Amino acid sequence: VSDFTEDDLVAMVRKLLGGEAVGVRLGAGDDAALVEFGHYLGILTTDMLVEGVHFERSSISPRDLGHKGLTVNVSDVAAMGGSPRYGLASIGLPDDVEMPWVVELYGGMLEAAADYGMSLVGGDTNRADRVVLSMTVTGEVDPGAVVTRGGGRPGERIVVTGRLGAAAGGLLLSRVPSQQMTGPVVEHGRELLAALTRPVARVGEGQALARSGATAMIDLSDGLAKDLGRLCAQSEVGAAVRLADVPVSPGLEELRDVLGADPLDLALHGGEDYELLATLPGEAVPAAAETLWEAFATRLTEIGEIREGRGLVAVAPDGSEGPLDPKGWDHFGG
Amino acid sequence: VSDFTEDDLVAMVRKLLGGEAVGVRLGAGDDAALVEFGHYLGILTTDMLVEGVHFERSSISPRDLGHKGLTVNVSDVAAMGGSPRYGLASIGLPDDVEMPWVVELYGGMLEAAADYGMSLVGGDTNRADRVVLSMTVTGEVDPGAVVTRGGGRPGERIVVTGRLGAAAGGLLLSRVPSQQMTGPVVEHGRELLAALTRPVARVGEGQALARSGATAMIDLSDGLAKDLGRLCAQSEVGAAVRLADVPVSPGLEELRDVLGADPLDLALHGGEDYELLATLPGEAVPAAAETLWEAFATRLTEIGEIREGRGLVAVAPDGSEGPLDPKGWDHFGG
Repeated sequence: VSDFTEDDLVAMVRKLLGGEAVGVRLGAGDDAALVEFGHYLGILTTDMLVEGVHFERSSISPRDLGHKGLTVNVSDVAAMGGSPRYGLASIGLPDDVEMPWVVELYGGMLEAAADYGMSLVGGDTNRADRVVLSMTVTGEVDPGAVVTRGGGRPGERIVVTGRLGAAAGGLLLSRVPSQQMTGPVVEHGRELLAALTRPVARVGEGQALARSGATAMIDLSDGLAKDLGRLCAQSEVGAAVRLADVPVSPGLEELRDVLGADPLDLALHGGEDYELLATLPGEAVPAAAETLWEAFATRLTEIGEIREGRGLVAVAPDGSEGPLDPKGWDHFGG
Repeated sequence: VSDFTEDDLVAMVRKLLGGEAVGVRLGAGDDAALVEFGHYLGILTTDMLVEGVHFERSSISPRDLGHKGLTVNVSDVAAMGGSPRYGLASIGLPDDVEMPWVVELYGGMLEAAADYGMSLVGGDTNRADRVVLSMTVTGEVDPGAVVTRGGGRPGERIVVTGRLGAAAGGLLLSRVPSQQMTGPVVEHGRELLAALTRPVARVGEGQALARSGATAMIDLSDGLAKDLGRLCAQSEVGAAVRLADVPVSPGLEELRDVLGADPLDLALHGGEDYELLATLPGEAVPAAAETLWEAFATRLTEIGEIREGRGLVAVAPDGSEGPLDPKGWDHFGG
């Protein structure tokens, strides 16, 4: 039996969310939160993290889980070129969760809200069999600066922020028996695990890409191949990816044997990187890359181009082409 | 193993949500929905329904569940005096759920969205152990017309819409063995079960109460005593409820033996009625009641008054007073 009532929990959440924030007329504790919506276009997004599906309670701290729960939603706002404003958290908690765990969970959400300059304004707590964290984020964007998935045109370049595959490597690493976690593995492994437990939403980068002329954009939650496929489907185009140019996360090569996985495979098909993939006219790429590097120390890599027709193509270093299979993280498929 | 992939599900949801709607710039299918926020104050609310806690899959149809999942959120918007605008659905689905069930679930949400003149603009689908339905609704309200829980003042009257206890009666009835479900029980029981599976959010009534001078308002999700206690805590006041005036749902008296419960007890402590409880100056009550009856055929009943100090008091028909224990539906407590 749990050691707190729903009202205890509500009171605790309220205390945690009690700070004043710009634009918040009324935060947690009433029937709903009251916020000021600006004169911008509104963005609404929601994402659910389920214990046993998206995370194991034994391998992520509640603080990291809370932080990640908000971050994955903010990443969707970033992928539209927008700014996150308000967050809501609906949480399901099993009997064996104790209050300090819940406090840490909210601590992580508040930390993420501070990271992204937004406010957590309320939510709902419930009993459940397993931990369920369902978060909603609203954002805003100037109508002229919106970037959807649907604007990619043949001949445009495909660019991606940061490096790929680290979160998938971290997931594999978290399953490696501890006796194999020797010095060099631990050293390279730390960054991979951090990518899994503390992803970063590319909010500033998304806005900079929008200003730099991005015609379509998506955040990489389910793997490059799968998410590029979604962008292409929306834009009604095909794409070619030069495999040699895909930016693979450092450490994956060194840990190839321990992880038992090909680094390029992790970069193409591993989920949860939350980097942004965008399409840009060729002439806009150098300036966009310079802006991202100077403003955010984030690298922008050109990895291929949009083509007429449909289908994804992988271009090998020798110039030969083959289909790029959009396998990726699928919560339902085999 | 389920008979569909996440992409199948996303495509289905998108098809269902594909219609055009006023204010929706971009609905389901991109990283986030794009909506126009008006010049009104924004309202944000979220509520989660968990299988085994809030409902059993065997005793509610997916259509009713979807309808209710949205309705309970709309009820929170109604309790602020606002209008619902946009909805998001995050859904967790176990392996044994088949596509037609999911289609029906969305069908119920869309039906509710139409009922309340709002748009379902997106969401997220996930694998889970049990069905989890986490919905978020945004609404808007004129800044001058907001009614929170915090404005009740001593001497003001306590009013409630509709009649109470039907949903709790329906819950008890759903556990009655089928051999006891004879003619008269079925006849009276139908309304109780409908109250449980198809609650109605009092949107128009909430706005009318706001215009009629309501000083505080809450929707009754966890029982009259408990929710009145919450309103009083927020308003920093106490309250007295005249037991003889509490409007008890018809049918509860007739089914007293079958349900094994006191009708007044169900009306005071049963959850999920989603009626509105408000405080009003005494002179404003008759006009408010007339408005609600003429515009919505909804009765408004005065059940007591706000008092100085703290604590809830029950006033018996003979005038004697005793504490009104705020026991109610608690997802965590014993």
